[in-house]
Amino acid sequence: MADEKVSNKRIIFKDYVTGYPKDDDMILTSSDIELKAPSGSAAVLIKNLYLSCDPYMRGKMSKPGVQSYTAAFTPGSVITGYGVGRVVDSGHPNFHAGDLVWGITGWEEYSLIKAPEGLIKIKYTDVPLSYYTGILGMPGLAAYVGFNELSSPKKGETVFVSAASGAVGQLVGQFAKLIGCYVVGSAGSQEKVDLLKSKFGFDDAFNYKEEHDLNAALKRHFPDGIDIYFENVGGAMLDAVLLNMRNHGRIAVCGMISQYNLTVKDAVHNLMCLVSKRIRMQGFIEPDHKHLYPQFLELAIQHIRKAAGLRRRRRRGP
Amino acid sequence: MADEKVSNKRIIFKDYVTGYPKDDDMILTSSDIELKAPSGSAAVLIKNLYLSCDPYMRGKMSKPGVQSYTAAFTPGSVITGYGVGRVVDSGHPNFHAGDLVWGITGWEEYSLIKAPEGLIKIKYTDVPLSYYTGILGMPGLAAYVGFNELSSPKKGETVFVSAASGAVGQLVGQFAKLIGCYVVGSAGSQEKVDLLKSKFGFDDAFNYKEEHDLNAALKRHFPDGIDIYFENVGGAMLDAVLLNMRNHGRIAVCGMISQYNLTVKDAVHNLMCLVSKRIRMQGFIEPDHKHLYPQFLELAIQHIRKAAGLRRRRRRGP
Ligand SMILES: NC(=O)c1ccc[n+]([C@@H]2O[C@H](COP(=O)([O-])OP(=O)(O)OC[C@H]3O[C@@H](n4cnc5c(N)ncnc54)[C@H](OP(=O)(O)O)[C@@H]3O)[C@@H](O)[C@H]2O)c1
Ligand SMILES: NC(=O)c1ccc[n+]([C@@H]2O[C@H](COP(=O)([O-])OP(=O)(O)OC[C@H]3O[C@@H](n4cnc5c(N)ncnc54)[C@H](OP(=O)(O)O)[C@@H]3O)[C@@H](O)[C@H]2O)c1
Repeated sequence: MADEKVSNKRIIFKDYVTGYPKDDDMILTSSDIELKAPSGSAAVLIKNLYLSCDPYMRGKMSKPGVQSYTAAFTPGSVITGYGVGRVVDSGHPNFHAGDLVWGITGWEEYSLIKAPEGLIKIKYTDVPLSYYTGILGMPGLAAYVGFNELSSPKKGETVFVSAASGAVGQLVGQFAKLIGCYVVGSAGSQEKVDLLKSKFGFDDAFNYKEEHDLNAALKRHFPDGIDIYFENVGGAMLDAVLLNMRNHGRIAVCGMISQYNLTVKDAVHNLMCLVSKRIRMQGFIEPDHKHLYPQFLELAIQHIRKAAGLRRRRRRGP
Repeated sequence: MADEKVSNKRIIFKDYVTGYPKDDDMILTSSDIELKAPSGSAAVLIKNLYLSCDPYMRGKMSKPGVQSYTAAFTPGSVITGYGVGRVVDSGHPNFHAGDLVWGITGWEEYSLIKAPEGLIKIKYTDVPLSYYTGILGMPGLAAYVGFNELSSPKKGETVFVSAASGAVGQLVGQFAKLIGCYVVGSAGSQEKVDLLKSKFGFDDAFNYKEEHDLNAALKRHFPDGIDIYFENVGGAMLDAVLLNMRNHGRIAVCGMISQYNLTVKDAVHNLMCLVSKRIRMQGFIEPDHKHLYPQFLELAIQHIRKAAGLRRRRRRGP
């Protein structure tokens, strides 16, 4: 394979973005790549099989600034993000050609990963590999950490999840049901609302775009208040949730997607509820908790297999 | 003493308040009171020695509403609040005439306390009794709980305290110095700023009313950011603090006094910092933590006596 050069389609980040990203903030281009790790390096060359587009990437499109926890993209360079790949060549003792991995790679056909220590070797392949950009990848661990580890959930508690049909939200709802909580989610279409109730096991769900009074919508769904809010959207939803939290409630602050494209962020007015209701708000980012990945993986794969078994049995009939 | 009736000056709450309270929202009146606990009752009759006026009382002046954690005052009834008193007569087995107590009493000369279980018997009388409305009372326990118990302070960390010269803030600064933190406070006059630095041991302080850019003021005082913010004021100060927190910072949310008289609360825009900096915000109220009072009292009295001894020795000379 040495010296073999192939063409490599790539998505290049053009320049910093203000407001909503547009198609032409990115450029599709192609260049040649040698399918080997530079000799003497500890780099790994992978063929990308799945690439994920995640909300945090919007932060990397803004000029480097205070609120960003990951470095901004470099204009003119390939966009980076989570993905699944197969090792083609490796200069690193932990990785070998043929290994399947997930982690930060590039939006291109082949990527040379210079610091492959961040890649995680894929242990279970009896599930679709794309799961490692979802439930078995970054969004899965984020949902688990934010809900199971940081929100102190207890059986019987009430849980509200925003952006509930997203990669993270749909898992939070399912983790909450496993613990025995009552879970309601919000999403932006009737189709998503139906999915939440029929497929993801939420007790109830509503379309936030159809509610002109979010406070009233939450009161309707939580007449006795919310014990745990899994925060994905921020802004007006957070403000309404604060009014509906119960005493000693917890808010896992995973993200605020409604704010990412705004230059002036929405106003939140009801923070005094934190005192009067003794609420704990905990921000977190998944990379801080990578050490929990092995235990999370075992838990998640078990449930995936159980659900797949149930589906198979249901298809075969009783 | 039985059947003895004396006149009892009282401050009556006239009606619910909107905006800033005014003198005539209260009425000074007088009525007669019998100086004994009704026979057969478990009530306690106390002579009030010190009464405290605390910020949370503003919440009790508003119409009963969602954000209030204590019941609103009853129009036409005496104002209640923390105070120090001497038991005159008692129908309760735990209290006897002559006992000194602190807790919730009335703004009047004598109060009949029908549920005296909430009163705490004063153990140490070698300090001014007024201390039981300050360092040895509710504000002291609030400062201790919010800082020592909920903010996980570590030696060498940076601490910012707003309303730093108030009953709570001045103690938070001193607790932080005892742990070996670097502490800066904000207050509303040069006199208070001087007091913070010369008497309360703060490393630095500034007058927030003289700063038109709070973000810049905080950057000046905390070039490397804030590990712990003890939140007493809310609004614009909180918004600026969020921009200046360090990763894994903690915010103890004790109160938001700048908001209490506003009908529309100030906007906070920078909450996405909770995620990017993995910040924990924890609201609390002192009554939830009364079980910590005995351990807090022992700690505080020790330091008060040590400081008094130092002052005496300094006055006598070397
Ligand atoms: N802290 C971490 O480590 C971490 C890790 C992963 C994700 N996150 C955060 O978690 C959140 C969800 O991520 P995800 O991976 O689940 O995203 P996703 O699968 O891409 O789903 C995002 C969904 O958010 C909803 N949304 C978009 N704009 C919105 C707005 N203005 N108001 C309300 N909802 C809006 C949309 O659904 P609707 O049709 O329902 O509006 C969208 O489908 C994001 O805030 C993300 O930044 C954080
Ligand atoms: N959670 C609890 O259990 C608990 C217990 C006690 C107190 N608290 C809260 O803790 C905070 C401080 O209480 P405290 O007993 O120390 O009060 P305090 O001794 O009465 O002092 C309050 C100080 O707050 C400052 N202030 C007033 N309005 C302000 C504004 N608009 N912006 C900024 N500062 C303002 C003033 O000082 P300046 O001249 O510096 O402006 C005032 O002297 C309050 O928010 C209170 O509600 C909470």
